[in-house]
Amino acid sequence: MRSAVQQSGTSFDPARIRHPHFRDLLTDAATAVSRIEDGDTVAISGFASAGTPKAFAPALAERMRTVRAAGGRLRVNLLTGASVSNEVEAMLAEVGGVDLRMPYQSEPTARRAINEGRVDYVDIHLSHVAQQVWEGYYGNVDVAVVEVAAVTDDGKLVPAMSVGNNKTWLDVADKVILEVNSWVPLGVEGMHDVYYRTALPPERRPIMLTRPDDRIGQAHLEVDPAKVIAVVPTDRQDSASALTEPDETSRAIAGHVVEFFRQEVERGRMPAGSLLPLQAGIGNVANAVLSGLEAGPFENLTCYSEVIQDSMLRLIREGKVAHASATSLALSQAGLEELVDNIDLYRDHITLRPQEISNHPEIVRRLGIIGMNGMLEADVYGNVNSTHVCGTRIMNGIGGSGDFTRNGYVSMFLSPSTAKGGAVSAIVPMIPHVDHTEHDVQVIVTEHGLADLRGLSPRKRARLVVDNCADPAYRPLLHDYLDRANARPDAGNTPHMLEEAFSFHTRFAATGSMLE
Amino acid sequence: MRSAVQQSGTSFDPARIRHPHFRDLLTDAATAVSRIEDGDTVAISGFASAGTPKAFAPALAERMRTVRAAGGRLRVNLLTGASVSNEVEAMLAEVGGVDLRMPYQSEPTARRAINEGRVDYVDIHLSHVAQQVWEGYYGNVDVAVVEVAAVTDDGKLVPAMSVGNNKTWLDVADKVILEVNSWVPLGVEGMHDVYYRTALPPERRPIMLTRPDDRIGQAHLEVDPAKVIAVVPTDRQDSASALTEPDETSRAIAGHVVEFFRQEVERGRMPAGSLLPLQAGIGNVANAVLSGLEAGPFENLTCYSEVIQDSMLRLIREGKVAHASATSLALSQAGLEELVDNIDLYRDHITLRPQEISNHPEIVRRLGIIGMNGMLEADVYGNVNSTHVCGTRIMNGIGGSGDFTRNGYVSMFLSPSTAKGGAVSAIVPMIPHVDHTEHDVQVIVTEHGLADLRGLSPRKRARLVVDNCADPAYRPLLHDYLDRANARPDAGNTPHMLEEAFSFHTRFAATGSMLE
Repeated sequence: MRSAVQQSGTSFDPARIRHPHFRDLLTDAATAVSRIEDGDTVAISGFASAGTPKAFAPALAERMRTVRAAGGRLRVNLLTGASVSNEVEAMLAEVGGVDLRMPYQSEPTARRAINEGRVDYVDIHLSHVAQQVWEGYYGNVDVAVVEVAAVTDDGKLVPAMSVGNNKTWLDVADKVILEVNSWVPLGVEGMHDVYYRTALPPERRPIMLTRPDDRIGQAHLEVDPAKVIAVVPTDRQDSASALTEPDETSRAIAGHVVEFFRQEVERGRMPAGSLLPLQAGIGNVANAVLSGLEAGPFENLTCYSEVIQDSMLRLIREGKVAHASATSLALSQAGLEELVDNIDLYRDHITLRPQEISNHPEIVRRLGIIGMNGMLEADVYGNVNSTHVCGTRIMNGIGGSGDFTRNGYVSMFLSPSTAKGGAVSAIVPMIPHVDHTEHDVQVIVTEHGLADLRGLSPRKRARLVVDNCADPAYRPLLHDYLDRANARPDAGNTPHMLEEAFSFHTRFAATGSMLE
Repeated sequence: MRSAVQQSGTSFDPARIRHPHFRDLLTDAATAVSRIEDGDTVAISGFASAGTPKAFAPALAERMRTVRAAGGRLRVNLLTGASVSNEVEAMLAEVGGVDLRMPYQSEPTARRAINEGRVDYVDIHLSHVAQQVWEGYYGNVDVAVVEVAAVTDDGKLVPAMSVGNNKTWLDVADKVILEVNSWVPLGVEGMHDVYYRTALPPERRPIMLTRPDDRIGQAHLEVDPAKVIAVVPTDRQDSASALTEPDETSRAIAGHVVEFFRQEVERGRMPAGSLLPLQAGIGNVANAVLSGLEAGPFENLTCYSEVIQDSMLRLIREGKVAHASATSLALSQAGLEELVDNIDLYRDHITLRPQEISNHPEIVRRLGIIGMNGMLEADVYGNVNSTHVCGTRIMNGIGGSGDFTRNGYVSMFLSPSTAKGGAVSAIVPMIPHVDHTEHDVQVIVTEHGLADLRGLSPRKRARLVVDNCADPAYRPLLHDYLDRANARPDAGNTPHMLEEAFSFHTRFAATGSMLE
């Protein structure tokens, strides 16, 4: 069907590059990365592993190795949508090629480099990235590297499996490298809604999106052809997310969430059938919660989120979800195949937008998002740590969890009550790193139950979190802490004992367990 | 000029109550509060001391005392805009009449009751109050008590010196008590812009406000006359804020802020003359910063904030500020007199809106607010504690600081570098209560300097905060903490030593000073 054409020594599919100017720029990745210079700020596509450029990173890592072997230096500042594929993140971290990383990572090699102080990491809300780059907080963006599905005959770009910050990267970068990926089905064209009317203040205007399925922009990305320095063909698929089937713990969490929704409907706080638009973070627990909706009483659901996982595809196919809006796909191998094989179905029920819009405070507040995100740990008062193990070592960035938590309608944090076989409790007296404050966290859920913190004072929240969410093995320790903190003459509105607030964490460091 | 008319034993000014139905409801406060029952949720007007009902609280406190003396019980849940006048807050706290308090307080007697666990306090963002009450998180609202300037001849209400949540209180309450205050100049009519098109999702629509001086609502509040159970005339002025003239410390802070603005303009991040809309918290430092703009190079400034302080009146009078939008006034005695005497001038340059709109995430993001708020302390990584002394005892609520910090364009926190004569440092290794996270705090300012944290990794932020903002007496201690934390093998992205992270606070508790 597709005829590969040879040009400049590089084969390409003419259906993928329909504009002659872009065909003239065809080259291989090694040639493209020769334009990257030491100290460059390089902004690449990719959000939750979808849409990461496939040819660029290996070629850049190889060049970094060569330059270093010759006694030179080649390091870059790396900006992305959110996470990129683990392979790419690891490749660039292993070669020591990154000075500064922004805004999100969750890959072990990069994480180690950050925790050892070899990479500067800036962990900001995903809805803030585009405006902060426009404002120049990260200096000049020298090169954008963006994966696309195709170049249209009028020189526009068909986005691939994520949008992320690609609009912004293409707009602000001095030079652009495009990767045209023939693995992405051409049927993806029309799935995207790229909004081009954001601006810096005082020129900002209302964003007229009022439903998850509204289309307010255009299907294509734009790029100034004069900035494009290379077009690199690839055919590698997006890397697959490592999703597992829901286990007993995540099914129990899902059960509590579905029951909560049922009660909220009963109280008249959410529309009976369709609830309000759902946001769910990445990972097995979020995937399980959405799976839990398959059996539930809800119909005609919508999703307004960052990512779409496998369970969402099933909900769409079963007609439970009418429309899902996101900025990216985070699918397993089976999910990727399901999507590619049925792209015409999913194109009608999925809209991929820039992350500036998928996570936008204005839209999140207006739509009344139900935010459901994972966490590392919560304290008894409802503060949440999403990022730092024992307060110091980063696990991953905050991502978009703050965008949905802060401005959404209901904010929920979900986690198994323990980790490491019970040696770590997800409920602790005080967390040593706060990503979401008591003012923003409304509901905490573990497999043991759900704590609805809304309208409660700190003292009441504390007992509820312990009784409903903590693992039974940890409840006596937590109540003992609270009892003694409450008994102090200066107990205050939020009773704590600072000298032992982190006793769970220091005990874990000393003994390998938070249990006494 | 004004002729007082006698009706139902209560004198009133006919220009103030122009509708016969409301005149028929005239009564005194003692009679009005006889309708308050034990367990009622009572929502009163008042934001930053402006617009607090004046006759209601003394009468209610008196009735509480009487009921208790007779062996009965009369306690209420008290909802407000933000703070109410200290007098009213203290009066109800002293008589032990409050079960639950929401959303903000900053008065010593109420604070003590909260810290001793006698009052449940729920500390939420001011932009969330209206929607959470609509959702029913605080149960049924039994009675609204709202101060107004007048009742129009078609039964609408001219708001007084604050709007706060009054629209919501009037809408949701079963019963309404109005206080008509003849101290408020009638010329205030037209200063307010009450937006009636907020809704709960999925019915929310874009709020079409794009400039601080836009008017998108109506000048009057509405009330269902059938719900009004009493109209109480008063003539007492709003209580005055205790503002002091800027001292050397606050002038130094203001100097750093103005210089920062100058640099931001130079970098092309803000319009040269008018900057972006300013938000400033309540208090002497904020007042001093705005005063610092009097001499600065900026013209045609605007303000989109919660409160208007004395300095803003001066900036308006001098033509430096073209328009100021807020939900309330927090003026000194001199400021109150200046406003009342020149109401026609200020009505043209000030718009008072519901706090749902003054603090709305959608608007705050769109306008690109420059948020400037005070703090109790910051840690070296840029987390901010606005509310809790030593992590346990609440000082005041978070108020609107989170609304502007989270969604604004630039978020700044300002504080003297020390308190209690140097015994307390505003910069500490770790804060024991986090109200604003490292993801949201961008700039920290003390009299010693300004730390611009944007685009920096935690390790870089830490040294900058210490060197630029900490008092020189504390810098060696802070660097020593960081040196040792950084030297640990598991230092991580955010180096800390949990066992001595609160050493400043525990030392203060033990010795009365954070200094060694």
